[in-house]
Amino acid sequence: MSPPKPSPPRSAEQPCPVARALDVIGDRWSLLIVRDAFDGVRRFSDLQRSLGMARNILADRLHKLVEAGILKTQAASDGSAYQEYVLTPRGERLFPVVVALRQWGERHLFARGERHSILVDRRTGETLAPMTPTARNGEAVAAMDTEVRKVR
Amino acid sequence: MSPPKPSPPRSAEQPCPVARALDVIGDRWSLLIVRDAFDGVRRFSDLQRSLGMARNILADRLHKLVEAGILKTQAASDGSAYQEYVLTPRGERLFPVVVALRQWGERHLFARGERHSILVDRRTGETLAPMTPTARNGEAVAAMDTEVRKVR
Repeated sequence: MSPPKPSPPRSAEQPCPVARALDVIGDRWSLLIVRDAFDGVRRFSDLQRSLGMARNILADRLHKLVEAGILKTQAASDGSAYQEYVLTPRGERLFPVVVALRQWGERHLFARGERHSILVDRRTGETLAPMTPTARNGEAVAAMDTEVRKVR
Repeated sequence: MSPPKPSPPRSAEQPCPVARALDVIGDRWSLLIVRDAFDGVRRFSDLQRSLGMARNILADRLHKLVEAGILKTQAASDGSAYQEYVLTPRGERLFPVVVALRQWGERHLFARGERHSILVDRRTGETLAPMTPTARNGEAVAAMDTEVRKVR
């Protein structure tokens, strides 16, 4: 028997959107699957090869992502019998999260000159601009200029 | 004995910045600690109360975040004997990740009218603009307009 897992706070009852988001996608595998989905990887076997994860864990995470409305299944685009997993609109709206993670990783987790994959605008071949939280008027907002207002 | 854990791909050898970022902060607790740090929660006991997590797990995650250069310890700002955990510049650059997670959670994980905490620009009291990946010229870039160029 496995030891009891630490029980996370039940964020479905919590008013913090960050906590709820992490309840749904806050494990490493789920976000790597989402990353691959953005990259066009659609089939179980291709995901498994790309991620190198155990089949049962991949199946579990795919099931959860479908349940959470982030992925949906569809018939294979080539008419074969395979099932494909594709992002829903809700899943596609995770793009800013994935880009922000990428940019932070690029900046902090590679040695100078160390090669890494890059995300480019395919129309220009250029990498994207750094993601910056901004005010409604378009001005950059630093963390120190913000505060969380709790409800109740 | 606990069952063997699935071994994640060793992303320290992988060229994807998203995978490396998730190696460092890709568990739910770590990002919740970072969220609290942005919110000014600095002491072990306050973090423990805020997050409702077991002391040993909190101690482990704090240790890892310090080791990863995301948090640092410093003497308490009020001159007491307490130790405080504060974000380093590297940690502060996770702000776009936390804001992107928050905005996605706000949009998709709350019922209409359900109250949730909000992040505001304290100078105006307004919430931030939606985070949008943009090209170097400032134009919004959709996921479908991008591609990952793998190295080697």
